[in-house]
Amino acid sequence: MTKEIYKKLENYMLLCMKDSAHDKEHVYRVLYVALDIAREEKEVDYDVLISACLLHDIARQEQNENPELCHAEVGAEKAYSFLIENNFGKDFAEKVKHCISSHRFRKNNAPESTEAKILFDADKIDVAGTLGIARTLVYQGAMCEPLYSLTTDGRVSDGTDDKTPSFFQEYKFKLEKIYSRFYTERGKAIAEERRKTAESFYNDMLREVSSSYDNGINLLDNIVI
Amino acid sequence: MTKEIYKKLENYMLLCMKDSAHDKEHVYRVLYVALDIAREEKEVDYDVLISACLLHDIARQEQNENPELCHAEVGAEKAYSFLIENNFGKDFAEKVKHCISSHRFRKNNAPESTEAKILFDADKIDVAGTLGIARTLVYQGAMCEPLYSLTTDGRVSDGTDDKTPSFFQEYKFKLEKIYSRFYTERGKAIAEERRKTAESFYNDMLREVSSSYDNGINLLDNIVI
Repeated sequence: MTKEIYKKLENYMLLCMKDSAHDKEHVYRVLYVALDIAREEKEVDYDVLISACLLHDIARQEQNENPELCHAEVGAEKAYSFLIENNFGKDFAEKVKHCISSHRFRKNNAPESTEAKILFDADKIDVAGTLGIARTLVYQGAMCEPLYSLTTDGRVSDGTDDKTPSFFQEYKFKLEKIYSRFYTERGKAIAEERRKTAESFYNDMLREVSSSYDNGINLLDNIVI
Repeated sequence: MTKEIYKKLENYMLLCMKDSAHDKEHVYRVLYVALDIAREEKEVDYDVLISACLLHDIARQEQNENPELCHAEVGAEKAYSFLIENNFGKDFAEKVKHCISSHRFRKNNAPESTEAKILFDADKIDVAGTLGIARTLVYQGAMCEPLYSLTTDGRVSDGTDDKTPSFFQEYKFKLEKIYSRFYTERGKAIAEERRKTAESFYNDMLREVSSSYDNGINLLDNIVI
C-alpha cells in the first residue's frame, strides 16, 4: 500500500469519526494489533486488512443515532461505496466489505477470510485487559450508569446476578467472558496475556468498595439507633 | 443519631443529587470510610460527622451548571439553611458548615475540627486506588476526553508532559500525587493500602497500549511505502 492510499483511507475514517476521540483511538489500536496477529497468519492481503481495519467502525455514529441500525452492516456498505467511488476495484471492495460486515459477532455472519478473522480478533482484543475496563468505564460515564448496584441490605453486589446495568454487571456478563472463541492463535495469546490485568482491576475494586460498605454499615448500625 | 434524623438527612441528600448515580455512590463511600477513620480519632461528634458526610456534595449540581461556583462553599450554606430550618440548632449547623466548606482543598480554608479533618481525608480516599481510576474514567466519558495523547511520531504519551486533558494526563498530574497531605493516620493508611491498585492499572494500561502502538507503527512502516 502506498502512503497516499493509506492517507486517503485514514482521512475518510477521521471524517466519519468526527469528534469521537475514543472511536479514533480504538481504530488505531485495532489496526496495530491486527498487524501483530497477521505476522503469524499465512497469505494475508495487507491492503485488504489495513483498509478493513481503518474503515471497520465508520458507521458508529449511524448506530448511535439509530440503535436499530448495525454499524457493521451499514459500515460495510459505506466502505464498499467509498472504495468503488475511489477506483479500488470491485473484487477488492467486496473483500473489505466482508471483513467489516462480519467483525461484529452475529451467528448468521461469521468472518470467513483470513483478513476478516484477523479484524474480528483484533477488535475483540480491545475489550480485553485494561482497555476493556477503561472503555467500559468511559461508556458508563457517557451513559450515566453506576459503577455497581446494591443488594437489598445496602451492600455492594459483585454483578453476578444483577438485573440493572452497571460496571460490575458488564464485567461479569461480558468482559469476563470474551477470552474464548478467537479465530487466530496469536489473537488468543494476546488476549490471554491481558486477561490478568482486567481480572486484577475488577477484584481490587470489588474488594476496596465492598470492604468500605461492609465496615461502614456495621459501624453505622451501632451509631444510628 | 436516631434513624429518623438519619433518614431526613439522607433524603435531602438524595433530593439534591437527583439522577447522578455516581454522586450518590460517592457519598455513601465517603460516609463509610469516615466512620472507619473516626474509630482511631478522639472525641468525635458522630452526629456532626454523619451529617457533614451525607451533605458534603449537595451543591455539586450548582457547580456543574456554573463552574465559577464552589460546591464546598455553596453546599456549606445550603446545609446550614437546611439544618436551621429543621431545628438542629445554630451551634450544630455551624459545625457541619465548617466541615463542608473546608472539605475541598483550598489554602484559605483548611479543615480545623476533627470531624472536618475526617471528612477531608475520607473524600480524598475516594480518589485513591481503583475508585480514583474508575471515577476519572467515568468523568472522561462524560466529558468526551481521550484516554491518552499521542506524541508527534504517533506513539502513546505516558501523560507526564501532556498539555491536553486525557486519562494518562489526569493520572500523572493528579491521581499519582494524592497520597500525601492526609490529616489522620488511619486516612493515610487506607490510602496507602489502595495506592498499589491504582499504580498497577496505570502501568498495565500504559504497557498494553504502548506495545500495540510501537509494534504496529514499526510493522506499518514496512508495509506502507
